[in-house]
Amino acid sequence: MSKILDLMDGRVLFTLVIGNTKTAEIPGITVAGANMDLIKYTPPADSELLYHGRCLSIDFIPATPDGKPTPALISYTALRLTKIPLLVVDSGLLVKPKIPHLTLSAPVGGNIAVERAMSYEVAKNVIENGKILGEQLSKLADLLVIGESIPAGTTTAGAVLKALGFEPKVSSSMPTNPVELKRNVIEQAVKRVQSKDPIEIISAVGDPVMAGVVGILSGCKRALLAGGTQMVAIANLAKRITDCEIAIATTEFVAKDKTADLSLAPCEVFVSKIPLANSKYPGLRAYAEGFVKEGVGAGGLTLFALKRGISEERLLAEIERDYEKIVLRKQ
Amino acid sequence: MSKILDLMDGRVLFTLVIGNTKTAEIPGITVAGANMDLIKYTPPADSELLYHGRCLSIDFIPATPDGKPTPALISYTALRLTKIPLLVVDSGLLVKPKIPHLTLSAPVGGNIAVERAMSYEVAKNVIENGKILGEQLSKLADLLVIGESIPAGTTTAGAVLKALGFEPKVSSSMPTNPVELKRNVIEQAVKRVQSKDPIEIISAVGDPVMAGVVGILSGCKRALLAGGTQMVAIANLAKRITDCEIAIATTEFVAKDKTADLSLAPCEVFVSKIPLANSKYPGLRAYAEGFVKEGVGAGGLTLFALKRGISEERLLAEIERDYEKIVLRKQ
Repeated sequence: MSKILDLMDGRVLFTLVIGNTKTAEIPGITVAGANMDLIKYTPPADSELLYHGRCLSIDFIPATPDGKPTPALISYTALRLTKIPLLVVDSGLLVKPKIPHLTLSAPVGGNIAVERAMSYEVAKNVIENGKILGEQLSKLADLLVIGESIPAGTTTAGAVLKALGFEPKVSSSMPTNPVELKRNVIEQAVKRVQSKDPIEIISAVGDPVMAGVVGILSGCKRALLAGGTQMVAIANLAKRITDCEIAIATTEFVAKDKTADLSLAPCEVFVSKIPLANSKYPGLRAYAEGFVKEGVGAGGLTLFALKRGISEERLLAEIERDYEKIVLRKQ
Repeated sequence: MSKILDLMDGRVLFTLVIGNTKTAEIPGITVAGANMDLIKYTPPADSELLYHGRCLSIDFIPATPDGKPTPALISYTALRLTKIPLLVVDSGLLVKPKIPHLTLSAPVGGNIAVERAMSYEVAKNVIENGKILGEQLSKLADLLVIGESIPAGTTTAGAVLKALGFEPKVSSSMPTNPVELKRNVIEQAVKRVQSKDPIEIISAVGDPVMAGVVGILSGCKRALLAGGTQMVAIANLAKRITDCEIAIATTEFVAKDKTADLSLAPCEVFVSKIPLANSKYPGLRAYAEGFVKEGVGAGGLTLFALKRGISEERLLAEIERDYEKIVLRKQ
């Protein structure tokens, strides 16, 4: 595992895999968007923010209904500071981003409360496409860092972990995690799973982003999964399919969440200490208070910034600078 | 320029930029496909062949009406031997390939005999997207090698060169280059050009692949354009927009073509000696007789194979092996 830590100083590529699941249409299941209509724009808008410092598909940045900003904001700062290259991968989007992006020809995922995420054959094809991509990207970078943006992704992650035989606790973008609601959806969903075959589990109760990331992992030797519970589910699926060496990096906000359970990770978990508790802005302090917490690779990317010599104080100041520019629109 | 030669031993990425122009619908203008219906499948099928050794969108490989195979066959062998990573970029396709690919959100190009290739604003946007992509890919590779596949691309290249003030002779996939037909189309097209602004020229008489490649070049420091006359047109456009250091690599079949004019290249041109004249297969010997000649980066990629120690004899044997497997379908 130390090999992955070593490679963090080498040639790194950040791959953001984004998509949608109709599971996000269940009222109350996610706050990854200000309202139901806007949730579908969250993944493309997150990816646009990373390249442009603003969103192109919507006029503002993704936020919770009460205005907590997307973690893409933190990832943007970390990418700006580290100059790590970024490629965006569409793995099942409802709305395509207005930036250059890769596609794995994945469908939008079905609502796992009532239907399969996708057919077995389709999941297999997305994984196969991901594998081809992973093989090519591996030739270009010593280490792939993979992030995600998919509203309701912690619910599909919970269902996957349950289908694999775990008793999942899964994190949420809300401080009062709607545990009961998620549990009910997960209970309904896992009845549909016909075997422990990882592809069956992804297609029955997962989502297209999982299929894409598992595929990419199948094609590469080493990867750092930048995310919380969703990456725990993906790591557990991937280790049944590929020998790819995997570690997870996430934020301390997920690590401290009692409803998340990083102990189910089948690999080492690195925790990034992002000093948002000290911010002068309530929208950023909210992260330390249990809102949003993680996403768009924020934990993993800040870990690179910190590991490459940027102090916690400077990181906070730079995040606040971008918050002022992007959210408060100060020049 | 020797810098580019030096970098050929470094970390290289082959980017295949593919698209369509409705100019290909003019009867007799191109043989990059067995018939009018099939021409639109040539770019996606070429790209599928490079990853899979077979096409997925059609049941056979692209060929001229009388059966000369696509140069993607030669590129496939060269990529297999050199292990150079490949990313495919959709820059205006009619049919999307069934492989992972990048998109620059470019439209299919208009038929320049009767209409603009695209609006100025759209061309500018494609170039902007290409620039973002070029910036990211430059961080991953020491040298970008860029190839193309777009039927009728030599005709749009001729129009661009004419609009830039040259008297173009342009190559063709046919031994009896339909020079008169092309000249008429080009004459009609250039009347539409309103200024020498490269973006105006691309949008008035160019094609979406040109916009994509010029964009990528705007974002990177050094690139090897793998192609014939089309790359000459692109290099002339790019040098008016970007400081990117450019060289061209093409096949000796283009270099020997009296109707092509590599002397219009504003940069060094490397010529790859592919020993197809010695092949036991007429379909491969045809290249040395003036058919097909170039495309899908065949000249540039074989140059890498030869430069990295693969002998001409071995290169021919490996191309013939793939010809047997892919075209003759021998096991």
